[in-house]
Amino acid sequence: MYVRVLKQLKASGKTVISSNSLGKLLQITPAQIRKDLSYFGKFGKQGRGYNIEYLLAALNKILGIDQEWKACLVGVGRLGRAIINYPGFSPHGFEIVACFDIDKSRINEPIAGMSIQPLGQIKNLVKSNNIKIGIVSVPADQTQGVVDLLVAAGVKGILNYAPISPVVETDIIVRTIDPVTSMQSMTYYLKGY
Amino acid sequence: MYVRVLKQLKASGKTVISSNSLGKLLQITPAQIRKDLSYFGKFGKQGRGYNIEYLLAALNKILGIDQEWKACLVGVGRLGRAIINYPGFSPHGFEIVACFDIDKSRINEPIAGMSIQPLGQIKNLVKSNNIKIGIVSVPADQTQGVVDLLVAAGVKGILNYAPISPVVETDIIVRTIDPVTSMQSMTYYLKGY
Repeated sequence: MYVRVLKQLKASGKTVISSNSLGKLLQITPAQIRKDLSYFGKFGKQGRGYNIEYLLAALNKILGIDQEWKACLVGVGRLGRAIINYPGFSPHGFEIVACFDIDKSRINEPIAGMSIQPLGQIKNLVKSNNIKIGIVSVPADQTQGVVDLLVAAGVKGILNYAPISPVVETDIIVRTIDPVTSMQSMTYYLKGY
Repeated sequence: MYVRVLKQLKASGKTVISSNSLGKLLQITPAQIRKDLSYFGKFGKQGRGYNIEYLLAALNKILGIDQEWKACLVGVGRLGRAIINYPGFSPHGFEIVACFDIDKSRINEPIAGMSIQPLGQIKNLVKSNNIKIGIVSVPADQTQGVVDLLVAAGVKGILNYAPISPVVETDIIVRTIDPVTSMQSMTYYLKGY
């Protein structure tokens, strides 16, 4: 979220930002910002605010987003196709280089410069392409099986669009995209209104 | 995330879960689970685990998701249409009852039992329908203006699909859905591999 907001500030032509203003954009306190950033070093001088370009470059490096990351996608249905064709990943260094589906009628179908592959190809292609991230857009009942295949093949991060939370070992990082969960995380604060 | 995982456990027929197993599903420590839940009361007995149905009902009530919430959507482009037609909201009590677009050619177009309205109708319809949540799926340069209109009309929560973080007062809750941010939040942990 820091990176997202700092990029936005940079694009708007700003060069310096106070922890107060940054806090307002991130909906957190200035104290929390200082605490968050202090884990990684010293990024601002008392009373001068943060240099946006410098902080952004530092965070990009810390977070590992100053490099290219290869991803694959499993489940080339309606949602999967939308994700594959989403133009926002590649400018941020994320490239979907392989996609897989369980449906035999889809195998070898061309999409975005790739061709859809069977699940049996996950192991080969993850290894040969050094893919570290798997995007999962399959139905609930297929999620755990697909995640297990990806992890066995060497994937370390899962971006999960499925409506089920898979069980994984602690060294595997899962991020869930679920608009219902996002909605539900707001209503606690809206109850009084 | 607790609610999501507990629903999943309930659907699978489980009735009790230990904080260890729950922690594994949520990728947090059992200690964190006890700490999280202790904010709201006492939900389990030492050594017996949590009663899934009881904990789920309690969390639904605490989070305010045991009631219906009305939402509107602004920006009925390709993404907006997918969100409106997404079947996952309504079973969880979220109903999109109005939608708006700036494009005159779309006004009065029927979609999912509604008709697309101009931005000038936001104030009327938010008030008359008691809408508390606004879903924003407009281009970056329109985001702040649309959020300002929604907040002025009485919306208290924003589900933001736009690639920009709007500035809002502290009593307005914003949740962002951005797959790039989710990807970037994983790579820190993947750097070593």
